[in-house]
Parts: sequence; C-alpha cells; structure tokens
Amino acid sequence: MPNQQSKLLVVGSLAYDSIETPAGSVERTLGGSANYFSLAASLFTQVRVVGVVGEDYADSDYQLLKSRGVELEGVTKVPGKTFFWKGKYEGDLNEAKTLKTDLNVFEIFNPQLPKTYVDSDFVFLANIDPVLQLQVLEQIQKPKYVGMDTMNFWISSKKQDLLKTVSKVDIILMNETEAMDLTGAENGISAAQRITEMGPSSVVIKRGEYGFVLYSKNEGFFILPAMPMGHVVDPTGAGDTFAGGFWGYLSSQGRRPTFHDLKLACLHGTVTASFTIQDFGVGKIKNVTKQDFDKRRQEYEKVVSFA
Amino acid sequence: MPNQQSKLLVVGSLAYDSIETPAGSVERTLGGSANYFSLAASLFTQVRVVGVVGEDYADSDYQLLKSRGVELEGVTKVPGKTFFWKGKYEGDLNEAKTLKTDLNVFEIFNPQLPKTYVDSDFVFLANIDPVLQLQVLEQIQKPKYVGMDTMNFWISSKKQDLLKTVSKVDIILMNETEAMDLTGAENGISAAQRITEMGPSSVVIKRGEYGFVLYSKNEGFFILPAMPMGHVVDPTGAGDTFAGGFWGYLSSQGRRPTFHDLKLACLHGTVTASFTIQDFGVGKIKNVTKQDFDKRRQEYEKVVSFA
Repeated sequence: MPNQQSKLLVVGSLAYDSIETPAGSVERTLGGSANYFSLAASLFTQVRVVGVVGEDYADSDYQLLKSRGVELEGVTKVPGKTFFWKGKYEGDLNEAKTLKTDLNVFEIFNPQLPKTYVDSDFVFLANIDPVLQLQVLEQIQKPKYVGMDTMNFWISSKKQDLLKTVSKVDIILMNETEAMDLTGAENGISAAQRITEMGPSSVVIKRGEYGFVLYSKNEGFFILPAMPMGHVVDPTGAGDTFAGGFWGYLSSQGRRPTFHDLKLACLHGTVTASFTIQDFGVGKIKNVTKQDFDKRRQEYEKVVSFA
Repeated sequence: MPNQQSKLLVVGSLAYDSIETPAGSVERTLGGSANYFSLAASLFTQVRVVGVVGEDYADSDYQLLKSRGVELEGVTKVPGKTFFWKGKYEGDLNEAKTLKTDLNVFEIFNPQLPKTYVDSDFVFLANIDPVLQLQVLEQIQKPKYVGMDTMNFWISSKKQDLLKTVSKVDIILMNETEAMDLTGAENGISAAQRITEMGPSSVVIKRGEYGFVLYSKNEGFFILPAMPMGHVVDPTGAGDTFAGGFWGYLSSQGRRPTFHDLKLACLHGTVTASFTIQDFGVGKIKNVTKQDFDKRRQEYEKVVSFA
C-alpha cells in the first residue's frame, strides 16, 4: 500500500516514441519521462504529474496512470501534437542515437500548477528546459526535498539557466557522460564530486547497465551495479524509471532523507529500472506489482552481497 | 604475513611498456602480466613465476620481485630483447589502443617448469598463447584450482586452441568486450553465462572502472563496482593486478574455493587494482603494503555497503 501522507510531484514529458533496438522496433509507443517515472513511483507512493499533451494523446494513456492512483490535474491538453521522439540503439545499449525530436506542444509549455499541487513535499524536475524546471519549483510552497535531471541539449544550449536551477535543488540524478559534460570532469566519480560544488548536497550518476554512483558531500560514495540482465529489449526509460523508484521510496518514507534513505532509494531505483528494459516502452513496467518488485529486490540484494 | 603453505604459479609476460595516457607518458617502464600479478599476489601468498626475458632485462627488475619473496627459478633469460608493448589511452580509459607489440623473446618461448614448481596448488595462466598456457598446465602434477585470461588476438587467431585450454580450467578472468567476442553474447552478463558452458564452472568478467561480474554455474552472480577513483593516471596492468589480488587471496586460503571464497577473492582483486591505476606502470603497486591494502579494503567495503 503506497504511503498516502507524502505527496510526490514530477514535471516531465508525456510522449510518444518510435524506438529501434537490436531486439526489434515499435512505432509511437507511450513514453516520456513523466510516464516512466509515475509508473515506477506509484508502486511506493502517491504521485502527481505536471505536463502537457496534444490532441492526439490517447484516453487510454491517461487511464493507465489513473489506474495507478496518479493525479493528473496538472496535465494540460492543448491544440497540436504530443511530444514525439524517435531513437535507435545500436551496439552500445547504454546510449541512444536520436533520429527525430518533435517538441510539438512542448514548445509552448508554460507550466502552471493546480492549487492542489502546491503542498507537494517531494519534487522531481525531470529532463525539460531548466527555465521551466525552475518555474515549476517556484510555485511549490515548502518542498521537503527537490531533485532534477538534465541532458546534453540543455548543457550546451542553456548552460546559465541550467546552473541557476542546479543551484536550487538538493540532488541531481543524471547520466554519467552528461555529468562529465556538465562538469568537464574526467570520469563519473570526479563529476559527482564537482556537482556538489554547484549547490546540490548529493548526486546520483546513472551508469546504465553498470548501475549508479551516489555521492553525498558529507557522507561520501555509495556505488552498486545494475541488476544483471542477460537480454535487454529496450533501455528507453530505464533512467526515468530509476528516478521513479528512487523518489517513490523517498516519498514513502516521508522525512527529509538521510544518506541511508538515499542508499535505499537507489536500491528501489535500480530494481525498478530492471523491469523497464525487459520490454519496449512501458510494456513491462506498467504491469509490475509490488510483489514482483519485492521478489526482484531480494534477488538483487543477493547479487551484491558478500554473505 | 603471506600464507606459506599453498603455492601459486603464474605464467605470463615480463615486459617493458611505453604508455601514453591523458595524464602523461612513460618510456620502457616495467610491465607485463606476470609482473603486475606477482606484485599484487605477493601481498597475500607465495608466488612463483614462469616466463622469459631478454638480455636487456634489468637486474633491478628481477630484484623487485625477489624482494617480495617471489620465486623466479622458472624465468629464463635468453638471447634477444624482452617483450615490448607500446599503447595509448584516449578518452575512454577502459580500452588501450595498441601502437606496437614486439614479441621478441616471446616468439620462441617454450615454457619448461623447474621441478620445484610441479607441486603448485593454484595456477593462473595469464594472457599468452593458449598453446603455451596448456603446455604449462600439463606440467603441473595436481593443481587444486586453475584459471586463465585471454584476449582478442587469440580469440581471432587461435580459437580452437583457445577453446581446448578453456575446457581445462576452473575459472576464466577476462575483459568484458573480449568475453562478448569469445561468446558472441550481447552483453557481459550473457557472456558470463555462456562461458560456463565451455568448461569452466566460474568466470570473472572484468569491467574496468565499472568493476567485475563473478558468475558461477551453480551459485549465480556476484557483481560489484570498482573502487571510486576520481583521477586515473594509467590503467595499464589493472586487470593483471586484479588477477593477482584474486589468486593471492585464494592461495592464502589454501582450500579449493567455495563461492564465498571467490567473492572475497574479487574483493581482494578490485581493491588491489585500485592502487595500480594511481601511477604509471608498477610505480604505485610496487610500494603498496598489507596495511595500505587493509585500509583501502575498509574504504571499499563502506562504498558498497547498505549499512
């Protein structure tokens, strides 16, 4: 039973994706950071979404989140088409090649929070324009713990805006190569340390199949691999699912997180992400239950245990 | 104090390397798998080396191993020059670009074990011609536990000989991309599983900065990251140092290893390897003490602990 006391808000994309991987391909499947995030986080807590969709957004795709108890009052439908991304994975499944990005309704996205959202405790600013990330954050009364993601596109095109948003958050979750780009560091370890000089007290570096690096300025490193998966169908959304499991756990605990809470949040993130890669899009994660999670968590803990 | 009861034999290269990395470069520094391996393993156990060097091999380089109690009766000096490798690391420190390989005296290497070596308990066949690996193994009376490494060059040029040697060992330690090449698997996880269908009951996939994957046919996976190092001077020899720490620990325990022994062997390997990358060549590892190791082991265990 998800914890109903804390409220977790995510702002991010609701999208349709066309994806090609060595395992096959799909056209216009449900995607976007907010969808992956919400499906994962709703295993553990109450989630509310801020986002925008176009007229082509299917009612069944709304219903999918609603069936998981996700609040959608902050999702606006506007004239135009939903955000669309087309990508391809070749040899290295850790990195997608973007073939097409149609911002569509995201080009005019101007996030206004419903009054019912302003009391949110936990806030995740998924990978969107850093100006919009800040705009959302400033509408929340008294957030308990705030995090963000970002990507190369914003690092190169809106660095100053990005650094301003970075300076306002408690934690960043981002990909290793992008963390190296942001900081100019030679590897993910050094990048993690440098990010904590930009404002956040903690950072999670996402390493794809190699897991994650959690670093806290005061507490140091916590590093573990991903769940071993001999076959990967589609890595799309794994990082957003990680974030969903991570924030879902933090919100379920309610308090401002200790380092130990952040460790367990990483555990929840990496275990949840291991489901996403087993099917295209949200195909697998949308059907995962708390029981499935608990079972895999046990398997994962065995893989990383000296005992 | 190293365990004096078990005897650990390694056959591998004694070499001079010229190395360029983003941190600088060195010319003709001491290298070779057997040197890295022995410096690491001698922290924990008695080591004996089989190998060949040329007339240019410096007496001080012999003395370095002797000062660590390493037996060198099986190292032959022959006319000609010592094995030489020149390599360069660019952006990705996980993979070296080979600029030059002069086999030199290795071209006529015909390993004959001294009588004092035939009672060896633990045997590591480092990355040399699989025909020579087998020739060494066949001279040992009753080995307790045998392992090997290999590389792309042998996978493409001597596949059948390689598979024969593979079928005779208990465990393989090899790089992830090379394990994928050997098996045709899509990732290191799947490669590990397939290798255990070729004879060995266990395998260790070395992932560079991302650590290792231990897989046992009967016991499953044990996976951990490498020690976090914000700055890497030279990754050369990290894999051979890992192997040295791994086998040094197994030999110090004496018994045919359980899965738990293999886990702790990986711990010893990864912690030992973290020293090697802090200087060029054997610059750092040659001065590491058991006390240095114990301190870093504690730091490492903290990094991967949920506690």
